[in-house]
Amino acid sequence: MKRKMKTIFRRILLGTIFVASCICQAQENSDKMLVRISEIEVYPQYLEAYLREAKEVGATSVKEESGVVCIFPMQVKRDSKLIRIVEIYASMEAYRKHINTSHFQKYKKGTLHMIKSLDLVDMNALNPEYMPQIFLKMKK
Amino acid sequence: MKRKMKTIFRRILLGTIFVASCICQAQENSDKMLVRISEIEVYPQYLEAYLREAKEVGATSVKEESGVVCIFPMQVKRDSKLIRIVEIYASMEAYRKHINTSHFQKYKKGTLHMIKSLDLVDMNALNPEYMPQIFLKMKK
Repeated sequence: MKRKMKTIFRRILLGTIFVASCICQAQENSDKMLVRISEIEVYPQYLEAYLREAKEVGATSVKEESGVVCIFPMQVKRDSKLIRIVEIYASMEAYRKHINTSHFQKYKKGTLHMIKSLDLVDMNALNPEYMPQIFLKMKK
Repeated sequence: MKRKMKTIFRRILLGTIFVASCICQAQENSDKMLVRISEIEVYPQYLEAYLREAKEVGATSVKEESGVVCIFPMQVKRDSKLIRIVEIYASMEAYRKHINTSHFQKYKKGTLHMIKSLDLVDMNALNPEYMPQIFLKMKK
């Protein structure tokens, strides 16, 4: 019984240290990060094709590039041709690397004619230390 | 040596199962989630006070409410009085609960006169299964 309590206590302690260290690192890293919402309007006739390309390039980038922290594309419910992509890069260098990858270049060239307007809106994150919580809550 | 290898292998296996289960659960949960970007313009004279309130209510909500998956406020760099808040709630019920909490009500009443315009833009997430990656990468 005593051993079980010890194990539980150790797990709680380790968990707390893990979460605390993630929060600290997120805070430290946030200064050099590039946080952006890309606001895109797609020509309606290309919407389906565009969504396919956007999903694919987002997934590949997050998976293959360590400097791509997050690419989270969304579609405005009340007007489905409006797309918003929350993008977070570890640094400007990571972003430059990203736009030179073959998967991004393929997406860029392949979707140019589908896009009516594009606005890259750079952001300051107000609470970067709370980003890790997104994950912690997603797994519940 | 053999034991060490076994431990490493066990850790890799556990890690893989953990990440895979998070991704699956995120996918399952995404259908009933409420995903939104709140677009806010603040009167310039109240900007500092508003940012303080917004940061506080976001942090408290994520910390105290299990149904608030993410509140991620950002400030538009080129026009600092424009605020964008990415909000993710586990369900409509979680959202309704959130807007009835004392901390949200305090924020709402306390900032009403600071806000020039507010647009709640509901979204469909295109790649919800990649949200957990945000966290995994933040801790690098």
